[in-house]
Amino acid sequence: LRNESAKLTKENQVGVGTVFIFHFCRIMKRLLISVFVWGSFHPLLAQDIDSLFISRLFQAALGEGKVYEDLRVLCKTAGPRISGSAEAGRAVDYTHAKMNEYGFDTVFRQEVEVPRWERGKEDSLRLDADGGVPGQAFPVCALGGSVAGELRGKVVEVLGWNDLQKLGKENIQGKIVFFNRPMDARMVHTFGAYGTCVDQRVYGAVWAAYYGAGGVIIRSMNPALDDYPHTGTLIYADSVARIPAVAISTNGAEQLSRLLKENPELSVKYSLFCRSFPDTLSHNVVGEIKGGTFPEKYIVVGGHLDAWDLGEGAHDDGGGCMQSIEALRLLKDLGYVPRHSLRSVMWMNEENGLKGALKYAELAEENKEYHVAAIEADRGAFTPRGFFIEGSEDNLLKMRSWLPLLEPYGIHVIRPGGAGADVSPLKKKEEKPVLIGFIPDSQRYFDYHHAATDTFESVNKRELEMGAAALAALIYLIDRHGTE
Amino acid sequence: LRNESAKLTKENQVGVGTVFIFHFCRIMKRLLISVFVWGSFHPLLAQDIDSLFISRLFQAALGEGKVYEDLRVLCKTAGPRISGSAEAGRAVDYTHAKMNEYGFDTVFRQEVEVPRWERGKEDSLRLDADGGVPGQAFPVCALGGSVAGELRGKVVEVLGWNDLQKLGKENIQGKIVFFNRPMDARMVHTFGAYGTCVDQRVYGAVWAAYYGAGGVIIRSMNPALDDYPHTGTLIYADSVARIPAVAISTNGAEQLSRLLKENPELSVKYSLFCRSFPDTLSHNVVGEIKGGTFPEKYIVVGGHLDAWDLGEGAHDDGGGCMQSIEALRLLKDLGYVPRHSLRSVMWMNEENGLKGALKYAELAEENKEYHVAAIEADRGAFTPRGFFIEGSEDNLLKMRSWLPLLEPYGIHVIRPGGAGADVSPLKKKEEKPVLIGFIPDSQRYFDYHHAATDTFESVNKRELEMGAAALAALIYLIDRHGTE
Repeated sequence: LRNESAKLTKENQVGVGTVFIFHFCRIMKRLLISVFVWGSFHPLLAQDIDSLFISRLFQAALGEGKVYEDLRVLCKTAGPRISGSAEAGRAVDYTHAKMNEYGFDTVFRQEVEVPRWERGKEDSLRLDADGGVPGQAFPVCALGGSVAGELRGKVVEVLGWNDLQKLGKENIQGKIVFFNRPMDARMVHTFGAYGTCVDQRVYGAVWAAYYGAGGVIIRSMNPALDDYPHTGTLIYADSVARIPAVAISTNGAEQLSRLLKENPELSVKYSLFCRSFPDTLSHNVVGEIKGGTFPEKYIVVGGHLDAWDLGEGAHDDGGGCMQSIEALRLLKDLGYVPRHSLRSVMWMNEENGLKGALKYAELAEENKEYHVAAIEADRGAFTPRGFFIEGSEDNLLKMRSWLPLLEPYGIHVIRPGGAGADVSPLKKKEEKPVLIGFIPDSQRYFDYHHAATDTFESVNKRELEMGAAALAALIYLIDRHGTE
Repeated sequence: LRNESAKLTKENQVGVGTVFIFHFCRIMKRLLISVFVWGSFHPLLAQDIDSLFISRLFQAALGEGKVYEDLRVLCKTAGPRISGSAEAGRAVDYTHAKMNEYGFDTVFRQEVEVPRWERGKEDSLRLDADGGVPGQAFPVCALGGSVAGELRGKVVEVLGWNDLQKLGKENIQGKIVFFNRPMDARMVHTFGAYGTCVDQRVYGAVWAAYYGAGGVIIRSMNPALDDYPHTGTLIYADSVARIPAVAISTNGAEQLSRLLKENPELSVKYSLFCRSFPDTLSHNVVGEIKGGTFPEKYIVVGGHLDAWDLGEGAHDDGGGCMQSIEALRLLKDLGYVPRHSLRSVMWMNEENGLKGALKYAELAEENKEYHVAAIEADRGAFTPRGFFIEGSEDNLLKMRSWLPLLEPYGIHVIRPGGAGADVSPLKKKEEKPVLIGFIPDSQRYFDYHHAATDTFESVNKRELEMGAAALAALIYLIDRHGTE
């Protein structure tokens, strides 16, 4: 790219910002006069007001946004904030203070009992070498919730449940099962590839234990080939033994697979020292801006405050949390007075329990809080592309009618789809709130997901800010026009 | 994000890829029978065939794509490949060999005379310290094409031409002019912000020389705050002195501006040792797949092979080049026999002369080569969003009718807009080819543009592959359905 677009016009000298503000003031003046003269029922006029306000939201987010610095502080002071950890506690305090600092009307904590699990420092997987010398080590990490264990054994590589069935107990008993089915790179939407692959991680330990295996090694859920293991939760069943489970990096998985092809009798040594503790007290954090017309009706936006203990939980889900706070701050700082009460919610313990989301829904029920809509931001801090809607056909049609207002900002997708784990318990509410999932671009997400690479530095400032503005714009439209 | 989407179904075990292939074969069989029975004029059927073929393109690009490895080799063996350099020569040889290796019908070079400019190793900008001790250095780089020069002088900070006019010769004569107008972060599309800001870089030296300045310092065209200076071309005018010009990093510009506020009498020392040489021989590289129905009519896709001498020219424009080769390879490897002849063109010297593009258009005219459409890929290797169209209303409507086929891949934008510098000389051709500019997501582009950060590592594999598939899909649609 070169200088094709440079022109020696006066406008260029002044800067487009100044020109915008000039035009904006002129248009606003006209609009205010028009509103005064004609009343506010002219449909084109409403569209113009929406369009201008959404433009201001994006301008403010990109020009004077706070979310990038807020995320930096969260990542650097409370990075690996697994539920129940001191870091998670710091994240609770930080977001509580932040929403107070931004002048939200009410900021409060909700008590939540959360599970507490800790990774061992010396977790390892090595080739089993002779003569007491440690063999070559692979980059691994315990899966979240895994039991500890030390074992030595032969490795059986499989793609999934079908392979286990074929192999049968006689070929698995006492061995270590290596699940090595890669995420399907050919799927355009990486969440789709994750969804058809993560069964290995979630159920692998149960499947393998059913056939008598002593432990499992799971290929990381990562479309890229690199040296970082990706953790994530697993599920144990009461009917079979709880066996230890590690994730291996994608490069490590490729190498282990090659070595097994050369020598199917290969043996590895496998040590996990992770520990589970009794449940402990933690918190959701909720910030609220009171509505002017329907103060008892809520529009909610949020992310989960806990993060896996590798990396800094920047994309998963520090970004979504800080964007949820920023969305309300933007609306407030632009002087917008909402009709409904707006809430920014930091759910605790999404990663290994969902206790925060369950508690939030339980209290919402108990307190008879009417929820109009709940938006979850938990797919990474990438360029915004749209929203998944869980609601009625009417909700969908209504929201799709807003697309022309959002397309100038690259938001083209409003379609049915799963909103997310943290808003899902609200499905049970009688008023049937519309559940909404924010969709950023998905191409890079799983490169960072649950790995040491999910750091503040992996987040692009503009993408993060655009996401916050997208959330604010949707909240504004719901608040102003309702959901059907 | 957690394990919500994991399900214990048979489909999950098999892998969605296998399922897809199964369904694909079934659908293809049905389609072939249908074609046989009904002929090929059923419009719905044509749509289905297109949809399936485009799906295959994306699957192949993401599943067995070559473009990431090809770009790695280009970046690592011919990285900083400014026109006329040995590195540019290596890029010519590499892409020539690559297109031969992929079995294109014809691969050839076109001779191009290009300017030759070289950066000095010791270019620097320092605070002017006393007692012969060198003062603090700022991260700077000469602008492309700058003359050499050593000077010491006071610094005048301005935003643009208007400020120079106000200050007048008496305040500028003999000083160094510091253009410090930032890219407007509030603009959603970063190319827009670049377009309204790059005048400082392109014309700054002429403007300042007109008022008698000895040199210019230009704030880098970078929306992020970091320590990397961004180069780029400047233009000199015959009517005023040619004065040296450096770009300063955005952090450096902020710091220099602060220091100037503290001490407006601040003086700096400024040394540039860059050199210009006589024009030298270089080449465009063209690879061709012969058309079956209209072999004398061309559809062209390309990028520019030269890159600035900082970084590796990964986004600008190694990505566009290798995607253009990959697009044709994908079509070929899927057994597609094009109706028109397809060309992948590596234009030389886009950055500082456009000589390659001018030569390509000149030869196309001389050889009476009819061009149906020319697509330029030169906006970075990010997630594809759409295409800018320079053509008639009919062209635009025709291409917009393909959007439903492209939207499943996140391509929502087909709108009028400048296609790009390298295809622009084809505008003069009598047959009025449709000129098309590939639009990837623009949020991150200028973080890397013309800087040492534009390396292979800054490119995401999936985004690069998606772009190649998007180009292939558009070529396919143009080839099959024409442009109006």
